[in-house]
Amino acid sequence: MATDFAATREMFDLPEGVIYLDGNSLGPLPCAAAARVADCVTGEWGKMLITAWNRAGWMDLPRRLGDRIGRLIGAEKGTVVLGDTLSIKVYQALASALELRPDRRVILSDTGNFPSDLYMADGLVRTLGQGYELRTVAPEAVEDAIGPDLAVLMLTEVDYRTGRKHDMARLIAKAHATGALVVWDLAHSAGAIEVDLAGAGADFAVGCTYKYLNSGPGGPAFIYVAPHLAEKARPALSGWLGHDAPFAFDLDYRPGAGIERMRVGTPPILQMAALDASMDIWDRIDMADIRARSIALSQAFIRGVEATCPTLALASPRDPAGRGSQVSLRHPEGYAIMQALIARGVIGDFRAPDILRFGFTPLYTTMEDVEEATAILADIMATASWDRPDFRTRAKVT
Amino acid sequence: MATDFAATREMFDLPEGVIYLDGNSLGPLPCAAAARVADCVTGEWGKMLITAWNRAGWMDLPRRLGDRIGRLIGAEKGTVVLGDTLSIKVYQALASALELRPDRRVILSDTGNFPSDLYMADGLVRTLGQGYELRTVAPEAVEDAIGPDLAVLMLTEVDYRTGRKHDMARLIAKAHATGALVVWDLAHSAGAIEVDLAGAGADFAVGCTYKYLNSGPGGPAFIYVAPHLAEKARPALSGWLGHDAPFAFDLDYRPGAGIERMRVGTPPILQMAALDASMDIWDRIDMADIRARSIALSQAFIRGVEATCPTLALASPRDPAGRGSQVSLRHPEGYAIMQALIARGVIGDFRAPDILRFGFTPLYTTMEDVEEATAILADIMATASWDRPDFRTRAKVT
Repeated sequence: MATDFAATREMFDLPEGVIYLDGNSLGPLPCAAAARVADCVTGEWGKMLITAWNRAGWMDLPRRLGDRIGRLIGAEKGTVVLGDTLSIKVYQALASALELRPDRRVILSDTGNFPSDLYMADGLVRTLGQGYELRTVAPEAVEDAIGPDLAVLMLTEVDYRTGRKHDMARLIAKAHATGALVVWDLAHSAGAIEVDLAGAGADFAVGCTYKYLNSGPGGPAFIYVAPHLAEKARPALSGWLGHDAPFAFDLDYRPGAGIERMRVGTPPILQMAALDASMDIWDRIDMADIRARSIALSQAFIRGVEATCPTLALASPRDPAGRGSQVSLRHPEGYAIMQALIARGVIGDFRAPDILRFGFTPLYTTMEDVEEATAILADIMATASWDRPDFRTRAKVT
Repeated sequence: MATDFAATREMFDLPEGVIYLDGNSLGPLPCAAAARVADCVTGEWGKMLITAWNRAGWMDLPRRLGDRIGRLIGAEKGTVVLGDTLSIKVYQALASALELRPDRRVILSDTGNFPSDLYMADGLVRTLGQGYELRTVAPEAVEDAIGPDLAVLMLTEVDYRTGRKHDMARLIAKAHATGALVVWDLAHSAGAIEVDLAGAGADFAVGCTYKYLNSGPGGPAFIYVAPHLAEKARPALSGWLGHDAPFAFDLDYRPGAGIERMRVGTPPILQMAALDASMDIWDRIDMADIRARSIALSQAFIRGVEATCPTLALASPRDPAGRGSQVSLRHPEGYAIMQALIARGVIGDFRAPDILRFGFTPLYTTMEDVEEATAILADIMATASWDRPDFRTRAKVT
């Protein structure tokens, strides 16, 4: 394996005494990000002021970072741009895709999709009116539900609760055969598993950077548009930085070249500085190494849990080929168990009603971490009294 | 005057030898912002990781910052929330306003509006279809163009090129009399002039924080919804953080209470940390003091320029009551003149084809700065050879 994971672990500023298995929710701080953000604040903003848009290269950051992320998801050069949040990018991709299929009205998604994607689609359908429809089926039923009325198939590749992974190439092929376009949400894919957008023939893809890509809280989202569609897609969210000549201040909108038109407003430069530092790590990484190591870590976790915790049920697909880079377990007292784990320094998270999620992130998680986390979980399961009031299941507020 | 502007100037980290008259484009760095952002990065993200969403109060930042900005623009408590970019917030406000006037189809704006607002409206009109129309007239013609077919009047209060200011209360009254709603863009108002949204009966308002509010490059935008509309407005950009219970992960969207529903995706926490530090300064400020001082500075600038630079034409209204906190001048060689000013340490900016813009920001700009800038400008105008090739007008690329 080419990647030296002992070395990459040293590139993260992890708190003492913590085993962090929640990088699928918010990645930890790359050591270099603190200095990079500080330099952006005091050296660029503070000293260059307005001139930093050109002198410090701020204006090009969304494209330059896009190319670096693009390499990790099999995107062609010049097809990915950063900006906004994932929800906004979902709206943007979906609206553009629908406009490219003007004679069709149906968006198909699944009930395992991240709710915000469904909410954004719902908002778009309401805005479009005219018979547009968002149809959702169970994840397993997606393939059979692809029919000739479909305008756009909108899916999250890896299920945020269970880690179940769709077969991207297969679903794209089926959708294309019926004349539909496909929008992929890569929130739990980018930096987690191997993705080959170009190879699979993806049309649109979107994703966030604060999970596996470690850009920090509220880091910008990204959007991919296939090269053959980029000049045809007309963004519904037509902001000035997606204009062909933003600083001509024309009164009429004229979309920029290719992926540039998917930019909207002024990009969040401090967040991009943090992402820039994180990408210095990712630039050296082969996603095949990440995937192999992620599978080794998660398989070890499953083996350990199943050997020691008989009441915890595996909620993720057992076959690693069928899941992303997380393992989920089910237990009626899941919330209380996660609180007990966090109190012991093992940070995962809980998703109602009964799912414990654990993300496996080879850049900074070792086999020893996995063994220790498994041992702590086994100890909690063996010694806890589930009928004590403080272990009662509560609705998680945030 | 209650505000001690000598003291506020010390709260900014301004480069040596620079007179910064471009705070209407990107405000300078508040001294406290560097440490606040660094603490957010290493102390919160680095040490608390995912738990910082609650423990460091990240989740509430968009609302808490909203209330602090709200005080500066005459908004009621709980009516302003931060997030996204200004262009996105324009779309959100406009879409909500149109939905509240379902029997009307016309959006009225003016040709002095910031182009991105017009582009976003154009994108929304295209998405809505069904006869929706964006109509633009000259700024001076707006009042007469308000008629009974109007659904929404969408205006930027202060013109980004000339500083010309609309009469907010008067235009709202006329629009309301015809049954229309009004969306205000406060990009060049918030922190620049006194705004009284509640007093004027505004319906929706949006603005950015990186100009007069000094939140740094790409700082988040804000949106205001009048209390009597907040529970009726249904956001077209219906993201999960605007859901009534985001962490219930329901499949169906149910808008959150009041202004909460205008949140969309995960907020940019590093940018908000910088804004938080800047608001520590603004919390002490009375906007009446800012306005009085801004007028004194800009009137002194106009007097100085008119006394020494006969070929520079005033592009802003002469009456300070009719403009915001900037002064614009016209000259055919405007680009070259601005380059010469910047080379001498006076930073303003240029807007094609012939406008030089100067922002007056009392928090950190003194009367001595204005006098020195005026003297440098007079010197440039007196000594430059406009027919030298390096002074030829060029198209400004960025």
